[in-house]
Amino acid sequence: MALRVAVAGASGYAGGEVLRLLLGHPEVEIGALTGGSNAGTRLGELQPHLPALADRVLEPTTAQTLAGHDIVFLGLPHGQSAAVAEELGEDVLVIDCGADFRLREAADWERFYGSAHAGTWPYGLPELPGNRAALKGSRRIAVPGCYPTAVSLALFPAYAAGFAEPEAVIVAASGTSGAGKAAKTNLLGSEVMGSVTPYGVGGVHRHTPEMSQNLGAVAGEPVTISFTPTLVPMSRGILATCTAKARPGVTAAGLRAAYTRAFADEPFVHLLPEGLWPQTKSVYGANTALVQVALDEHAGRIIAISAIDNLVKGTAGGAVQSMNIALGLPEELGLPVNGVAP
Amino acid sequence: MALRVAVAGASGYAGGEVLRLLLGHPEVEIGALTGGSNAGTRLGELQPHLPALADRVLEPTTAQTLAGHDIVFLGLPHGQSAAVAEELGEDVLVIDCGADFRLREAADWERFYGSAHAGTWPYGLPELPGNRAALKGSRRIAVPGCYPTAVSLALFPAYAAGFAEPEAVIVAASGTSGAGKAAKTNLLGSEVMGSVTPYGVGGVHRHTPEMSQNLGAVAGEPVTISFTPTLVPMSRGILATCTAKARPGVTAAGLRAAYTRAFADEPFVHLLPEGLWPQTKSVYGANTALVQVALDEHAGRIIAISAIDNLVKGTAGGAVQSMNIALGLPEELGLPVNGVAP
Amino acid sequence: MALRVAVAGASGYAGGEVLRLLLGHPEVEIGALTGGSNAGTRLGELQPHLPALADRVLEPTTAQTLAGHDIVFLGLPHGQSAAVAEELGEDVLVIDCGADFRLREAADWERFYGSAHAGTWPYGLPELPGNRAALKGSRRIAVPGCYPTAVSLALFPAYAAGFAEPEAVIVAASGTSGAGKAAKTNLLGSEVMGSVTPYGVGGVHRHTPEMSQNLGAVAGEPVTISFTPTLVPMSRGILATCTAKARPGVTAAGLRAAYTRAFADEPFVHLLPEGLWPQTKSVYGANTALVQVALDEHAGRIIAISAIDNLVKGTAGGAVQSMNIALGLPEELGLPVNGVAP
Amino acid sequence: MALRVAVAGASGYAGGEVLRLLLGHPEVEIGALTGGSNAGTRLGELQPHLPALADRVLEPTTAQTLAGHDIVFLGLPHGQSAAVAEELGEDVLVIDCGADFRLREAADWERFYGSAHAGTWPYGLPELPGNRAALKGSRRIAVPGCYPTAVSLALFPAYAAGFAEPEAVIVAASGTSGAGKAAKTNLLGSEVMGSVTPYGVGGVHRHTPEMSQNLGAVAGEPVTISFTPTLVPMSRGILATCTAKARPGVTAAGLRAAYTRAFADEPFVHLLPEGLWPQTKSVYGANTALVQVALDEHAGRIIAISAIDNLVKGTAGGAVQSMNIALGLPEELGLPVNGVAP
Repeated sequence: MALRVAVAGASGYAGGEVLRLLLGHPEVEIGALTGGSNAGTRLGELQPHLPALADRVLEPTTAQTLAGHDIVFLGLPHGQSAAVAEELGEDVLVIDCGADFRLREAADWERFYGSAHAGTWPYGLPELPGNRAALKGSRRIAVPGCYPTAVSLALFPAYAAGFAEPEAVIVAASGTSGAGKAAKTNLLGSEVMGSVTPYGVGGVHRHTPEMSQNLGAVAGEPVTISFTPTLVPMSRGILATCTAKARPGVTAAGLRAAYTRAFADEPFVHLLPEGLWPQTKSVYGANTALVQVALDEHAGRIIAISAIDNLVKGTAGGAVQSMNIALGLPEELGLPVNGVAP
Repeated sequence: MALRVAVAGASGYAGGEVLRLLLGHPEVEIGALTGGSNAGTRLGELQPHLPALADRVLEPTTAQTLAGHDIVFLGLPHGQSAAVAEELGEDVLVIDCGADFRLREAADWERFYGSAHAGTWPYGLPELPGNRAALKGSRRIAVPGCYPTAVSLALFPAYAAGFAEPEAVIVAASGTSGAGKAAKTNLLGSEVMGSVTPYGVGGVHRHTPEMSQNLGAVAGEPVTISFTPTLVPMSRGILATCTAKARPGVTAAGLRAAYTRAFADEPFVHLLPEGLWPQTKSVYGANTALVQVALDEHAGRIIAISAIDNLVKGTAGGAVQSMNIALGLPEELGLPVNGVAP
Repeated sequence: MALRVAVAGASGYAGGEVLRLLLGHPEVEIGALTGGSNAGTRLGELQPHLPALADRVLEPTTAQTLAGHDIVFLGLPHGQSAAVAEELGEDVLVIDCGADFRLREAADWERFYGSAHAGTWPYGLPELPGNRAALKGSRRIAVPGCYPTAVSLALFPAYAAGFAEPEAVIVAASGTSGAGKAAKTNLLGSEVMGSVTPYGVGGVHRHTPEMSQNLGAVAGEPVTISFTPTLVPMSRGILATCTAKARPGVTAAGLRAAYTRAFADEPFVHLLPEGLWPQTKSVYGANTALVQVALDEHAGRIIAISAIDNLVKGTAGGAVQSMNIALGLPEELGLPVNGVAP
Repeated sequence: MALRVAVAGASGYAGGEVLRLLLGHPEVEIGALTGGSNAGTRLGELQPHLPALADRVLEPTTAQTLAGHDIVFLGLPHGQSAAVAEELGEDVLVIDCGADFRLREAADWERFYGSAHAGTWPYGLPELPGNRAALKGSRRIAVPGCYPTAVSLALFPAYAAGFAEPEAVIVAASGTSGAGKAAKTNLLGSEVMGSVTPYGVGGVHRHTPEMSQNLGAVAGEPVTISFTPTLVPMSRGILATCTAKARPGVTAAGLRAAYTRAFADEPFVHLLPEGLWPQTKSVYGANTALVQVALDEHAGRIIAISAIDNLVKGTAGGAVQSMNIALGLPEELGLPVNGVAP
């Protein structure tokens, strides 16, 4: 019998992508769809790319509308997930696409989000050491941020192998859907087409502590992050260019071996053959991360680059992958490996 | 047991999209992949969005490499399909994504393509009256052109109902993948970004006779087409704006009823609710055509607009849909209805 | 001594483009810049592409702030220009980039804008017969809409020569800046990139009566317009594809001669050599309209296509060109003929 | 009397942009335009955005066609400039937009370009200490690479002040025109739209030694560069994100003071107010570099970001600016400061 799923925040980009993937998932059935100001509107007007659900009408996001489902996805503004989750039973699988339960240190949360820390849930990036086991059987999942997903996949093998100095310099390019569906003039098509725009420069982006947390756990020591995100003129995709000083003795062959080993059994991470570098278009619509790594001998730095679709592997796909693991389903169920290109 | 499929022209855009769809099709198994100048190259270098086939190596397009398959897709330059098809057995399902077997009138072919006419195969646009029956059990299929698909779906209900004068004016906007993967300076990203570019203006585009053929068959009289295609800055998608003078007595309600009836049972054509108009992004990656129609009472014209993904419903998706029909499989098998958006 | 110019609505797209052009105009000096909700903000934050004015602070749009200038450009929401203009002296040159004074028939205004008609000013499209003379010495100018500019330039020579039936079918593609700088979710970059979106379909777009007015005046009889505008993924540019049935006896040579004659002395309209068609990128940032025309003998239709930059020839450039004429300055002063490409 | 200019390579992107700027320059007159395989073609077909020169026909690039001009711009493939320059008189101002004469160390040239070093000419980045003086009166100018222009402007004040460790990490995003007008499938619009693509990763990009040369000269010690360029979906623009470890004692105030001082008198470098970061769109078509700098105290790094138009300040505009200096003309003559946006 199909598992019943509710999606809170079904009119946003994360919610829409969760729905697109779930429509192709053989074990689930889509139940309540809820929204904030959009409650009462047909989904066909809000997400016209989902004709299969065009006649569904959004309900308000309340405990009542979300009750009676096996799985609830939350695509809510930061800070709103805890209250909703509390009202759902402990046997309901709650998957939070927001930031509320990602960070382990309350101090990090308070510094970057300015409110009280709600807690920490199992972290939905199965590829990081230990995470797959923690997700198995869990009924609460914190979906990682899109940038931390891209960056952690690119760098963790280098830190796991002890090859990189604990200071990483990361510049990431993201499609504009990463900024959400809010009506802001700086996100208008007229503004973003033809423009590369940095933002959150100088260590103030909220995804910075999450990256430090992930890489520090793998490295066994604190990892300092210099992170500069930029918006580029495309709807989807993240390319994360990540470098760190190589520790003495690191060789190109050793580096490659570490990455090959790290991703050998991963269904959604594809280490490219030497000489090829990832591009975002290749993962459009797919749950795949493409990764490449090299040693710049002249500069003495490891350079690792990953490409993901921020809405799939970076949000909704990672969420469904974690859902599959939590429920004991095949990890790859309902998740596209191949991108939509060109 | 899975049906074995070969794809000739696997390095092009049509071939790549056929592969993407077949990778999600439960009844087929991908056999030989062939190419022209790219024979010998790993598919991972040519189609990096298909990691599932990254290690496959392209073979040359010969009768030998294509032999021993149940189904052969041809994504070859115009004029090359007939020779290849002749060497394949009559029990092999041959699906030609090129133009060679689309036109019924040899004179049309000769005028627009300048060579001898190869013949006519059952036409892979199942939604047109009579076509589904002709495709059933067929072992040869001519996949329609992308523009004729969009235009025929937008206008045929009006002509079937006798509502439109037999002179249609069509302006279509296409993503650049419609122009193929050939290295030409006018198709460089630097040239197409920021530009809308008409081409083949004045009735000289090769898809014009195909549209006349489709609409004329439905109308029961010759339909003259004024067709202007334009390239717009996106990879995929066609928006076809189609108008024709309304015949006396046509009403908005009657028009809508005709369209509702025409598409009532169609799994891949979605007539939008009144007031909503299709946009190409909604069908990105999907086999869906979105259609809307209205009567401009002031100008006395029917206006019908359709949006398709030129590489899916306009090529590879239409091909797989027709394949399903020919083989007696469920028509929707392996074909996405929902688009990848935003 | 330089003429002092004020710009009301300096934070919008029209206002910003007026400023960009005026900064390169040798006879003017930029005075007050005003805004609505943005009053009090530095222009550097609102129009970061104008470093020459970065330190200017927007004032509120009042009679007081606009007083004391020789020229006032109005880039205000529709319906607000009349009140402002009334307070400015009759010797001040007032150039309205809004729609308020474009239409001659009060009934047209009321039907399409739903308020009382403010009046009619000399129409700032100098290329139309009679307009240049009317602009000379005028102290009030109504800047045409961007679509009517593109469409009128493409079609008026055909109507002036009596070559076209009085029913035109027009499909236009516009960059998103034509929709203005308002924060709306449907204009977000994530939505518009990858999409062609029709809007105002079926004769309801407000620019329709303006086109009829322009072409009807030239034709000497009413001209019915079927107009479908679409938004395409670029910031700027309009491509207008305009067709009309050719009257009996019209020849390709006669048609070309009519267009050659019409534009022979026009500094800002460039009739392309036969076989070349305009593309929007060529006029990016320029006050140039590129035009081409052909006779589709098979369909019996004249097809004329024009490309303009909607913010330059379609708004701010047309405004400055008309300003030059009104003031007796050389018509081309301060206006770029060459586009910024690629 | 106007100076006569010839442009070799007038059909390429650099050549086209030189022409666009020179058409707005009051002291020059455009003479011979030459091309390679395009000799004999009308410029109107190759550069349709320059209607002012549409009827000019390209001549072959020979000593004869280039003779008799006061100024010759060379937009030729790397390695071809020396031979052409030798045939031009010493009193002719030769401005090479290629790489041939940029590097001081023959070994650098040989390693990155694999041929014999042609020599070193005064370097056309006037903002770097000492360069303006060297350009004055010179009759040979090497126009800098586009990436080195962006990176050098972003970082040189930090190195000049002794604030940064001599190891810089740079990730730059470039519009596709930086890759030139060659017909390559990886540069097709279908490929680049929707994609961020790294290339030349790991220290192998040819602009790397040029950056080291510029920053090392300012720092007074060798500066190691880790440089990763990426192509993003836009025609023009470079955003360079440049970081380096801050030396002990560096403060945010001191850093800002150094940048303020460095650019105080520069007509084409605009240091943004604190809190605003440059975006490429703001400099579209302009010779302006927008720069911002900050100290990331947590990561201990200086972060400097610059935005330029790769074809203007990064190529043709820098070339004309240097031409003005060499000839004793006002440095800003004919060069736009304000960008074309949105």
